[in-house]
Amino acid sequence: MLNQDCFLSKNWMGSKETYEEAKWVMIGLPFDSTCSNRPGTRFASNEIRYASYGLEEYSPMLNKELNSTSFYDAGDLNLPFGNPHDALFIIKNCANNIINDNKFIFGVGGEHLVSLPLIQAAYQKYPNMILVHFDAHADLRQEYLGQKLSHATVIRRVLDDISSNNLIQIGIRSGEKEEFLFMNENKTLCQTNDEIIKKLNEYNLNIPIYLTIDLDVLDPSIFSGTGTPEPGGMTYKELIEKLMLFKNKNVIGIDVVELSPHYDISGVSTVVAAKIIRELLIGFT
Amino acid sequence: MLNQDCFLSKNWMGSKETYEEAKWVMIGLPFDSTCSNRPGTRFASNEIRYASYGLEEYSPMLNKELNSTSFYDAGDLNLPFGNPHDALFIIKNCANNIINDNKFIFGVGGEHLVSLPLIQAAYQKYPNMILVHFDAHADLRQEYLGQKLSHATVIRRVLDDISSNNLIQIGIRSGEKEEFLFMNENKTLCQTNDEIIKKLNEYNLNIPIYLTIDLDVLDPSIFSGTGTPEPGGMTYKELIEKLMLFKNKNVIGIDVVELSPHYDISGVSTVVAAKIIRELLIGFT
Amino acid sequence: MLNQDCFLSKNWMGSKETYEEAKWVMIGLPFDSTCSNRPGTRFASNEIRYASYGLEEYSPMLNKELNSTSFYDAGDLNLPFGNPHDALFIIKNCANNIINDNKFIFGVGGEHLVSLPLIQAAYQKYPNMILVHFDAHADLRQEYLGQKLSHATVIRRVLDDISSNNLIQIGIRSGEKEEFLFMNENKTLCQTNDEIIKKLNEYNLNIPIYLTIDLDVLDPSIFSGTGTPEPGGMTYKELIEKLMLFKNKNVIGIDVVELSPHYDISGVSTVVAAKIIRELLIGFT
Amino acid sequence: MLNQDCFLSKNWMGSKETYEEAKWVMIGLPFDSTCSNRPGTRFASNEIRYASYGLEEYSPMLNKELNSTSFYDAGDLNLPFGNPHDALFIIKNCANNIINDNKFIFGVGGEHLVSLPLIQAAYQKYPNMILVHFDAHADLRQEYLGQKLSHATVIRRVLDDISSNNLIQIGIRSGEKEEFLFMNENKTLCQTNDEIIKKLNEYNLNIPIYLTIDLDVLDPSIFSGTGTPEPGGMTYKELIEKLMLFKNKNVIGIDVVELSPHYDISGVSTVVAAKIIRELLIGFT
Amino acid sequence: MLNQDCFLSKNWMGSKETYEEAKWVMIGLPFDSTCSNRPGTRFASNEIRYASYGLEEYSPMLNKELNSTSFYDAGDLNLPFGNPHDALFIIKNCANNIINDNKFIFGVGGEHLVSLPLIQAAYQKYPNMILVHFDAHADLRQEYLGQKLSHATVIRRVLDDISSNNLIQIGIRSGEKEEFLFMNENKTLCQTNDEIIKKLNEYNLNIPIYLTIDLDVLDPSIFSGTGTPEPGGMTYKELIEKLMLFKNKNVIGIDVVELSPHYDISGVSTVVAAKIIRELLIGFT
Amino acid sequence: MLNQDCFLSKNWMGSKETYEEAKWVMIGLPFDSTCSNRPGTRFASNEIRYASYGLEEYSPMLNKELNSTSFYDAGDLNLPFGNPHDALFIIKNCANNIINDNKFIFGVGGEHLVSLPLIQAAYQKYPNMILVHFDAHADLRQEYLGQKLSHATVIRRVLDDISSNNLIQIGIRSGEKEEFLFMNENKTLCQTNDEIIKKLNEYNLNIPIYLTIDLDVLDPSIFSGTGTPEPGGMTYKELIEKLMLFKNKNVIGIDVVELSPHYDISGVSTVVAAKIIRELLIGFT
Repeated sequence: MLNQDCFLSKNWMGSKETYEEAKWVMIGLPFDSTCSNRPGTRFASNEIRYASYGLEEYSPMLNKELNSTSFYDAGDLNLPFGNPHDALFIIKNCANNIINDNKFIFGVGGEHLVSLPLIQAAYQKYPNMILVHFDAHADLRQEYLGQKLSHATVIRRVLDDISSNNLIQIGIRSGEKEEFLFMNENKTLCQTNDEIIKKLNEYNLNIPIYLTIDLDVLDPSIFSGTGTPEPGGMTYKELIEKLMLFKNKNVIGIDVVELSPHYDISGVSTVVAAKIIRELLIGFT
Repeated sequence: MLNQDCFLSKNWMGSKETYEEAKWVMIGLPFDSTCSNRPGTRFASNEIRYASYGLEEYSPMLNKELNSTSFYDAGDLNLPFGNPHDALFIIKNCANNIINDNKFIFGVGGEHLVSLPLIQAAYQKYPNMILVHFDAHADLRQEYLGQKLSHATVIRRVLDDISSNNLIQIGIRSGEKEEFLFMNENKTLCQTNDEIIKKLNEYNLNIPIYLTIDLDVLDPSIFSGTGTPEPGGMTYKELIEKLMLFKNKNVIGIDVVELSPHYDISGVSTVVAAKIIRELLIGFT
Repeated sequence: MLNQDCFLSKNWMGSKETYEEAKWVMIGLPFDSTCSNRPGTRFASNEIRYASYGLEEYSPMLNKELNSTSFYDAGDLNLPFGNPHDALFIIKNCANNIINDNKFIFGVGGEHLVSLPLIQAAYQKYPNMILVHFDAHADLRQEYLGQKLSHATVIRRVLDDISSNNLIQIGIRSGEKEEFLFMNENKTLCQTNDEIIKKLNEYNLNIPIYLTIDLDVLDPSIFSGTGTPEPGGMTYKELIEKLMLFKNKNVIGIDVVELSPHYDISGVSTVVAAKIIRELLIGFT
Repeated sequence: MLNQDCFLSKNWMGSKETYEEAKWVMIGLPFDSTCSNRPGTRFASNEIRYASYGLEEYSPMLNKELNSTSFYDAGDLNLPFGNPHDALFIIKNCANNIINDNKFIFGVGGEHLVSLPLIQAAYQKYPNMILVHFDAHADLRQEYLGQKLSHATVIRRVLDDISSNNLIQIGIRSGEKEEFLFMNENKTLCQTNDEIIKKLNEYNLNIPIYLTIDLDVLDPSIFSGTGTPEPGGMTYKELIEKLMLFKNKNVIGIDVVELSPHYDISGVSTVVAAKIIRELLIGFT
Repeated sequence: MLNQDCFLSKNWMGSKETYEEAKWVMIGLPFDSTCSNRPGTRFASNEIRYASYGLEEYSPMLNKELNSTSFYDAGDLNLPFGNPHDALFIIKNCANNIINDNKFIFGVGGEHLVSLPLIQAAYQKYPNMILVHFDAHADLRQEYLGQKLSHATVIRRVLDDISSNNLIQIGIRSGEKEEFLFMNENKTLCQTNDEIIKKLNEYNLNIPIYLTIDLDVLDPSIFSGTGTPEPGGMTYKELIEKLMLFKNKNVIGIDVVELSPHYDISGVSTVVAAKIIRELLIGFT
Repeated sequence: MLNQDCFLSKNWMGSKETYEEAKWVMIGLPFDSTCSNRPGTRFASNEIRYASYGLEEYSPMLNKELNSTSFYDAGDLNLPFGNPHDALFIIKNCANNIINDNKFIFGVGGEHLVSLPLIQAAYQKYPNMILVHFDAHADLRQEYLGQKLSHATVIRRVLDDISSNNLIQIGIRSGEKEEFLFMNENKTLCQTNDEIIKKLNEYNLNIPIYLTIDLDVLDPSIFSGTGTPEPGGMTYKELIEKLMLFKNKNVIGIDVVELSPHYDISGVSTVVAAKIIRELLIGFT
């Protein structure tokens, strides 16, 4: 007989054995067909999963171990390239199923467009939720290269449903003039920790929160493996600090997107993504 | 005054100064949104253009120089990512314009799907033309990942218009069982030089010929910069030899696709693509 | 409920769902602690598994598909670094279990030393078996850097048990003077297809055969991702041709070792390894 | 007819169509023959030009768009390798022509030696100008490896003409003992923003200023693509902040040098260079 | 006759000509066989040596030149892979010989395990010495993957001899829960400069100090060339500042380990290692 | 005392301990300042030296070991960048000294221009010698980019002294029309083994022969690490075979040039160069 205990797991480090026993469900979303700059985010979820085993299970910052969390790594969805509509449909379906089982979703991209159906599915269940958007780019265009569905329009598409009052944007440092005008007018942009805390205090204490994290919010010095690197971003410590402002809140959905692992052959960007996900898993699931 | 002669050209080496004076028109087609494996062909046309200046203008094989040819490098078309339909529409339009001016097109991809509108436009003008398809992959699927427009279906889409009697396939070594069955039944596959010559003799001597060259027909030892490398392919010399079988024929269109330059950081694949294009330009334009 | 059919498999393409239903069992062996030159083969089995999905399931050469084979991908063994003795012990144990279930093993390295316990386990079951050794290096040293257990001594260690009459070596082009003397004296080296066929005819037609394939037998032009690249090797076609000489024989064990994927960032070497394994799976399992 | 509007521009994003209509003229200077460490800056100007299209046209920091500027990208000068004297002569000639047309030059290197003729040409027109030198290295040697013309002597050569009173050096953290003695004695070195502001106040408010920016002034964490990386440098934000201290001054010439794009295959260094140039173009032209 | 003065030295820049005339002896320790993550540190000492010639001999921070120091670069020890016991034995022997000659050792790794025999040899001579440990990882495990000798256990092995009262740990940000418990209980962890200074004041002013520096204590933004990159680390400036807290102390041994040069193909990590070693040589030898 | 036997050598594998005892002297020539395409050959001699230790000392082809040869590795000459005249002067001087000691030179480049002073020095001693030139490029230009001293003019400069009757060119496949005309008229080009043998038979049996080997004569599939890769070249086996045609001749000088190691990060090109040099050392020294 084969002794499975001698073999390495094929799931994310610390994943529960079954879907049923987990409160959160991690899904990989290998899609990058609307990337305008350098594609390759389709490889991210698989590489991060493998890199998770290079990490420790224990987080000194949170003084807690991954095995005390409750998540299940369901693997990577099978998504068609060159057809954003169909890809989003498949993701939406899967997300609905998971949310209907009263579980929370932890999405791992893929390009930012894959966040759209996750956010939409969460919004159907939690219509008063706020969306917290970490990114270097505003992603607020009405369309991009003539397309309405694109990584550069994803937050605008979200605003087709959700009020801009329920949007908090953090780290944005690039966009069109119109996008910055919009952020100014709608006061969606919070740059400092104090601004974030103040903004959060405006909401009901228990309001559902969805975190969508485009990793290019980090400075390319620590995260070069992304399609549209944007100098002048956060350090790793600054990002973690900002994420932890949401620690004791009612977080009901998370996604982490836009790692393009092949652009950083040192592997550091993949490790950064994996460690951020570990901290999110330990802190929020 | 600025002396432009002191500056390097921004066109392909040997390009005419104007569109009007050239018989052939080179267009770059930076599109890769349906790539199933490793994307990045969108960067190819620009990189090849720059690499052309590392080559000699003289071809010892053809004993002729690039400046004796007649082509104009029009630059790279502006194509939307994530929307194959619109991208193909733009390419088709541009191709029609050029062909209506009684010029021939030399397309530089991009993924193989960009060949489709070029071939279609040529076919409208030359309805009795034959298509010569160099590739490692059959590209004959009815659909791929649920999509009808994809790099893996491009030759099948061509066959919606053109008869399989007018198709010659060279170098194919990978595909589904059904694709190989099709090639067997329709006798489209020619593996040796003799088979190609024999097949060509079946046609009218002056029949118009369109060459579509997926560079992954080469062995990955000499061409690693491609999304779907397929071991067991041709050497550079073998490919050039086969291409030159069409030298004194009536070639009315050419495209060269599927270089993904970032996957070969030695730059060799880009040089290979540039040198093949140089030989084609000197031999056919 | 989660619809698992929407997700990508985490096993090798074409793997059976369970251990029980398969005749062959694939095990990954991520170990490289005795590598003298450039380590990194520990990453190979995982990368090859992922790359398998970039291949077609159909082999034109064998005119057969992967889903008609019978193998189960058990995953990667958990092996301690820096301790060859313990690592070999774990592998041996696992191999014995599988062989005791009357199954055959398909090992995916790792460095060549991991083949030793697989060969030993097979030898216990099939004491009259012959070992066919594809490699650039003789691996016949008595010891290497003072160690008896090393990638450079692995075939010598095998000969502690197995007679040199039952050893066929193919592709060897590097070694110490003593190793070449040994090969000469014992006539273990077969360089051409004819020599291999002739040698095979000396044995009983149904004799059990174990194939151990160090991928550096290939020329580094097509396989640069290995620790000790040795110019002057076989092309991909030549290797496949030689492997297929064993197709209708009684092959009872296979291993494929010494891919170091990070040294070839184009990914070609990993694809080469995956395609060779696909042909072996379709041809032999 | 060919519709040029469907094609991507071959000039820097935002460049005017003609030389005549522009106030500033950008020239690429692909030369690196005296590099002592790792050469490759000859590829920089072309790569930066291509990368400019990955940026937004709008600068949130300056709240202004590139299309409101007035510059023309003249392309890359054709320079002979292995002959610094001739290369500098060609650059000097070209610079004189542009300055005689009452335009300003924006040079894009190339190694730092290419700045010399640009500075000399500017000095002839503006003999009271001050030179602001951003760099990790003092570049003050009398000679280097026996050569008087070298990237390591460029500022010393400038001082053959210009008084050290008119030199401000920022970011220097490497050099010979003699170079640091010189900087101490002549008080050319300003490390903090306050020191720069104070120094600037010593000059006439409208004094002409030439900015020469060796990008290795940045820390290699954000700018690894350079021949002589020097740990302990500025962050991107710190450099931009310092550059903007000159915003409302009378800047009459700029050059940006020492990107060696192939050493940073993530492409981040090229993006950093492009974004700095964008901010300089929007802020100063 | 050959004029040796025309040739480049094969030793570290600034090395004395002979062992006899030097107070410190640099030895390279190319060993990485217990690395759990990404191996390759065996190449470090040779690459750093070569990179030293890209540096200036003068340190502006210390206002002193390398030629005023007293060290001899003995070269790289010949160590067997796959056998930590034998490798440590060889290192220990060599270290004892040097220490018996009343010289100090400057070790250049290799993985962290190579520090163990250097520290042990120093401890035999200086039994009251304190060990200062710069690292991202605690390295305090009792065993790792079943092995007692491993890069992850090296400080625990040191504590078999040395009291935890004589251990100062700096920069640790990753480990198991038990390791952090140990550091808490034994108060070995000093995070700020103030904590280090305070801790140092608890010891005798002239107490012998051994510095072991695992370079992954640096943030991976500036040091990506290491096997276990750990985001959230020190900048180069912060590390140098902390190292210089020991400048006028009685430092009797130093080692610098865990550069894996091939993982950072920009070469920056190697330059960082070389520059830190230069500052240590100028500051301490 | 330090036991030097425990340390790795800093010379090429198999080098004699002293200059005096050797018949051949290897000198490294790190210079690349006239490279028109991709520079970096300055790093070659050092990288090849290190890579030599990854090879076996025994050549199966020659059935002989490196320790039976007689050569001394003198190290790398210290050459100024950006000044070909001075660099060539230094090399010439060094070469004269060695030849005056009645020794033979084995040069390791560097760009091809470094061969010029070696050939000139040999010619002074052996005025009836023939020059055998392996290369992809004719290198016969009168000048290149306005320079008379360049890698592209090196053989033309040789012909200022040596008659074209004493020149054999092998592997040339790229050049200007004029260069091919010259080769045709002077019958310097030998493409097949038979042509080489026939040509050799025209000379006196004991005529002194100098071999200058530009490694880009190899196909870039096996040798991608070079500045001007030229598809359609020799395999490794074909080159070795051709080199061995000169085995029992009176070879009095050799150089091997144009490896640019950083362009092939797999390291294969460096190994290829090292192995070719090993075979030359064993076969000719």
